[in-house]
Amino acid sequence: MLSFESDYIEGAHPLILECLARTNMQQLTGYGMDELCKGAKEKIKAACGLKNADVFLLSGGTQTNQLVISSLLKSYEGVIAAETGHVNVHEAGAIEYSGHKVLALPSHNGKLCPKEVKSYLALFHADQNNEHMVFPGMVYISFPTELGTLYSKAELSELHSVCREYGIPLYIDGARLGYGLASREQELSLPEFAWLCDVFYIGGTKVGALIGEALVFPKGDAPERFNTLIKQHGAMLAKGRIIGAQFDTLFTDDLYFKISRHAIDMAEKLKALFKEKGYRFFVDSPTNQQFFVMDDERIAELSKKVAFSFWERVDEGHSAVRFVTSWATKEESIDELSKYL
Amino acid sequence: MLSFESDYIEGAHPLILECLARTNMQQLTGYGMDELCKGAKEKIKAACGLKNADVFLLSGGTQTNQLVISSLLKSYEGVIAAETGHVNVHEAGAIEYSGHKVLALPSHNGKLCPKEVKSYLALFHADQNNEHMVFPGMVYISFPTELGTLYSKAELSELHSVCREYGIPLYIDGARLGYGLASREQELSLPEFAWLCDVFYIGGTKVGALIGEALVFPKGDAPERFNTLIKQHGAMLAKGRIIGAQFDTLFTDDLYFKISRHAIDMAEKLKALFKEKGYRFFVDSPTNQQFFVMDDERIAELSKKVAFSFWERVDEGHSAVRFVTSWATKEESIDELSKYL
Amino acid sequence: MLSFESDYIEGAHPLILECLARTNMQQLTGYGMDELCKGAKEKIKAACGLKNADVFLLSGGTQTNQLVISSLLKSYEGVIAAETGHVNVHEAGAIEYSGHKVLALPSHNGKLCPKEVKSYLALFHADQNNEHMVFPGMVYISFPTELGTLYSKAELSELHSVCREYGIPLYIDGARLGYGLASREQELSLPEFAWLCDVFYIGGTKVGALIGEALVFPKGDAPERFNTLIKQHGAMLAKGRIIGAQFDTLFTDDLYFKISRHAIDMAEKLKALFKEKGYRFFVDSPTNQQFFVMDDERIAELSKKVAFSFWERVDEGHSAVRFVTSWATKEESIDELSKYL
Amino acid sequence: MLSFESDYIEGAHPLILECLARTNMQQLTGYGMDELCKGAKEKIKAACGLKNADVFLLSGGTQTNQLVISSLLKSYEGVIAAETGHVNVHEAGAIEYSGHKVLALPSHNGKLCPKEVKSYLALFHADQNNEHMVFPGMVYISFPTELGTLYSKAELSELHSVCREYGIPLYIDGARLGYGLASREQELSLPEFAWLCDVFYIGGTKVGALIGEALVFPKGDAPERFNTLIKQHGAMLAKGRIIGAQFDTLFTDDLYFKISRHAIDMAEKLKALFKEKGYRFFVDSPTNQQFFVMDDERIAELSKKVAFSFWERVDEGHSAVRFVTSWATKEESIDELSKYL
Repeated sequence: MLSFESDYIEGAHPLILECLARTNMQQLTGYGMDELCKGAKEKIKAACGLKNADVFLLSGGTQTNQLVISSLLKSYEGVIAAETGHVNVHEAGAIEYSGHKVLALPSHNGKLCPKEVKSYLALFHADQNNEHMVFPGMVYISFPTELGTLYSKAELSELHSVCREYGIPLYIDGARLGYGLASREQELSLPEFAWLCDVFYIGGTKVGALIGEALVFPKGDAPERFNTLIKQHGAMLAKGRIIGAQFDTLFTDDLYFKISRHAIDMAEKLKALFKEKGYRFFVDSPTNQQFFVMDDERIAELSKKVAFSFWERVDEGHSAVRFVTSWATKEESIDELSKYL
Repeated sequence: MLSFESDYIEGAHPLILECLARTNMQQLTGYGMDELCKGAKEKIKAACGLKNADVFLLSGGTQTNQLVISSLLKSYEGVIAAETGHVNVHEAGAIEYSGHKVLALPSHNGKLCPKEVKSYLALFHADQNNEHMVFPGMVYISFPTELGTLYSKAELSELHSVCREYGIPLYIDGARLGYGLASREQELSLPEFAWLCDVFYIGGTKVGALIGEALVFPKGDAPERFNTLIKQHGAMLAKGRIIGAQFDTLFTDDLYFKISRHAIDMAEKLKALFKEKGYRFFVDSPTNQQFFVMDDERIAELSKKVAFSFWERVDEGHSAVRFVTSWATKEESIDELSKYL
Repeated sequence: MLSFESDYIEGAHPLILECLARTNMQQLTGYGMDELCKGAKEKIKAACGLKNADVFLLSGGTQTNQLVISSLLKSYEGVIAAETGHVNVHEAGAIEYSGHKVLALPSHNGKLCPKEVKSYLALFHADQNNEHMVFPGMVYISFPTELGTLYSKAELSELHSVCREYGIPLYIDGARLGYGLASREQELSLPEFAWLCDVFYIGGTKVGALIGEALVFPKGDAPERFNTLIKQHGAMLAKGRIIGAQFDTLFTDDLYFKISRHAIDMAEKLKALFKEKGYRFFVDSPTNQQFFVMDDERIAELSKKVAFSFWERVDEGHSAVRFVTSWATKEESIDELSKYL
Repeated sequence: MLSFESDYIEGAHPLILECLARTNMQQLTGYGMDELCKGAKEKIKAACGLKNADVFLLSGGTQTNQLVISSLLKSYEGVIAAETGHVNVHEAGAIEYSGHKVLALPSHNGKLCPKEVKSYLALFHADQNNEHMVFPGMVYISFPTELGTLYSKAELSELHSVCREYGIPLYIDGARLGYGLASREQELSLPEFAWLCDVFYIGGTKVGALIGEALVFPKGDAPERFNTLIKQHGAMLAKGRIIGAQFDTLFTDDLYFKISRHAIDMAEKLKALFKEKGYRFFVDSPTNQQFFVMDDERIAELSKKVAFSFWERVDEGHSAVRFVTSWATKEESIDELSKYL
């Protein structure tokens, strides 16, 4: 069956499997100290234009979010996120499990509004009774967001300068970073992007890898003994090479960017198709996740031939649904889909 | 350079890579709900002779230990472990990070003494002031232990019945379970083993997989919403298939047991070699980790040609060193080592 | 200066000091196992009409909330509370520090709407993707709320039956319970109240005690080893007698209820006064906390002679302010206030 | 019945009750910001000879230990303590609950050996594999210890300089500090003592107060937003005045020292009595806790007339028992005890 269910339904890009096979019997040291990991980190730093960055290779997004947020926050601090933010709703309370409150602000198509963040921080700092409240100690955003939307360069800059004004880090969850950077509406290169935040991760799992997220501290100011923190969170792989091999491959010959662009091309084709067929867009997303409004009958009908996700109820009789493209989406699949719409 | 440094210096058994390649473009659902994971779990249950077991596939040992221990213990409980136990010394405080004390008892070549466990529990329960103390709520052991040693069937049975007497679970860390079961001094089959504890995991990472540990609740009594707990700990992989593929392969045609036996054959050859050369054994280990006493000069000399681990200082002039075999050890390597001893 | 700042600006009711003095040199056992604590607990049970309740004496509200919520919730669960709930905004993240998310629902003058709670629970349970979300495991309300409002008997009953329907406990924070039960708009006796929830606490600190809150499990189903949990939270007093003496006094000859009624009488006099003077009520509160809207000039003026609290900005030029009465409020103080309004 | 059971069986020193009564109806602001607390803090700073110290008033010892240790340690750090240390055995896992491991070193009559601490730290820092181990981030000792013993000035100085060498704080639990400083074998004044550590607390609960411990950061370097941390731990009292009044009284006219000396005088009389009667000393304690060895028959006999504590089994037929004096011990009680020995 045709599937647009998510960007993690296939395995890895074939070049990654090749790399794993090629290096398989090399005897390498454990815990991410091997040559494959080192190579991957160097290539990532080069792609970011950051000589002194600290890079760590982790397994998944929730793991990375929990680790970063709990490591950077002081005990009395919480993290600001959009109400729809992944850390606020879809991580099973991983942030709270690590002892910290998610301070939810309104979501504007998945995005925080820099002005609202600023006024939240200003109000907090002006409140004389704030000693009994959770101190806002970090801003978390995702790029692209859970709704596929992107912060503009101006918005990112504004958020970043609000953060600097209040002395707190801006952390960007880049689970789908490739698709964000490849978007036709995106104005930023990876190096520009890297300078607009304090810490971010480059998503691998949803962009061609089997597992793996590359966490980057652009200024090289990772918390002390970060490897110990990784181990303490159960996030240290004995055979770190498995992630090293993947990022080494993804950051060789621009593979990460090329396959991301393919996903965007497919998304644009998908958008055009739905537009042509007269569907209403639930969100105007410039990335690989597309959201449409459909009536229930059509959803039921289409579900028999195509896999996609229910997103949310819109009104009596209509729902929003999600279609996702990825590095692995074939052009023929969209042609086939066309027949069913 | 020749290496006996650990059992995680190579990648995966070739059949695993083959399976990953073969299934790579299959579109599978995420989060471990796919066919590969289901298949793997069924094969593991069959190998354990347990129809109703709950099986979960996780990434690494520390992650599994933290998850199991914190999920099974009540807030006021701690876990009994040998002083040398992995959870007590080499997990960067992962258990304490999850809120629980490790109650360390003496190590006898890496093992807990069932009688000491029993008398610890008896004393605790007899103490009228125990309300201010950490309640011993679980016993943790590893099989084989960090020193390569094994509990006999009688010892395991005794520990298990002590646990039942006091109503607490016996949890077995099987990071190297294959090598334990394949040992020539081992009396237990996997099904027999599974009935002598309340929860255990079958180590993949050190026994031929790239990553992966299979957690088994033999009685099918996993904590409620265990998948939510996995997610909360950052231990849920979007592409769960990667672990599914590995265990599916390992538990097809007895591969797990065959490659474990090979490692034991190599270990026995290694033991014979060191014995023949007149080296002193630091511990008498029947599994794939071997510990010898060497003088410093010899260690320095040998290190130039062979990789192995320093274990601990024995006396002025001598140290214990560790040599490890695995599924990937080649017979020629031991022959070559022979020349340097 | 005249003060209506809060209900904890004076020390204790004189009879409490007398009891402390009278029993001071008695040699009593520690940790709440003494005769004063036992007596207090028996009197509380009698006042609640509950023979088999479990009662624990603790120091403060945040401590009690943290202890109850973290002890009753499973690791994967969070607690539903109104957005304005004390646990959500004024406890410095104490609930999250213990690992649990506060699931904030809209506040209606400080109260949760039972129908909204029900539909939140229904939606959650209907969502197939809820495995990655925080499970709603408890409902927290305060009685009176932070805005002085009260749930009617019908509302409490409805909330309680929603909780039973979904198998989760209803926990009531009674920091000002006395003032709630003494309110002229309140329809419930303490025993009736006690049967409409699963666990609640009777506030002492704000109702005549120096410190102390009495936690009640009406059905006698306190978590196992609750004293160990108290100790683990740093909430166990060596001289538990200090709280025992206070609740013993408060629950002798109905003192708790008498002094609460006095506070309500004073609040009603205060309301009448503000009404007469033409002030707008910010909330219609039937308890000891009263909220009025004042223009900024008047606030500045009045602040020179009377202490009261700024609550929140209402519009350009107006703010809401809070005046609080208590067991210790003197009728003359209100007469004096009258001159300044 | 005569009781030497503990130093917290009576209420408060009469002057404290007087202060509570005298200030009872004063209208004071909450949360420890009142004049009584401020006065108490100033007097404590003066007694310590520390102008710039930070002082916080808390309720109990376990609460204070948990708060200090979890606030000063980084997530990956643990605290070194003697195996017999209060934080290691009698706080129900409060330290682990806050996420940190207690690194237990051998106890020498309740004390850590500075040389052993130094060599533990040296070994840890020399170990190349220490990334997977808990980093020793603090040294915790009690003064006096749980066995009534005291560190000499030389020992304290040595411990302190080991801590400075490794850049970690020395924290002293002074639950019974008064009795330590008043001991005839003690060489230190309070100001000298305060300079030999980085943070300590002055115990009130066991030295004449109803509740209360005064936490002192001699260098004025308390963690940022420490009041928020106090609130987050449920350790903030709304009526902070109750502890303010107690320490204000204890540090007026040297009351704290005078009543401590009385307890020591009584302890010395007790020691002389047991010596004279030919009892064996289990520990040679120079403070208010005294430990003797008795045969079981004698213990049973004596228990009928005198309350004291069983400490531990010494051999078949003998046990160690504990007799405690305090500010409240009457000379006549010891005379009466004399008759029963």
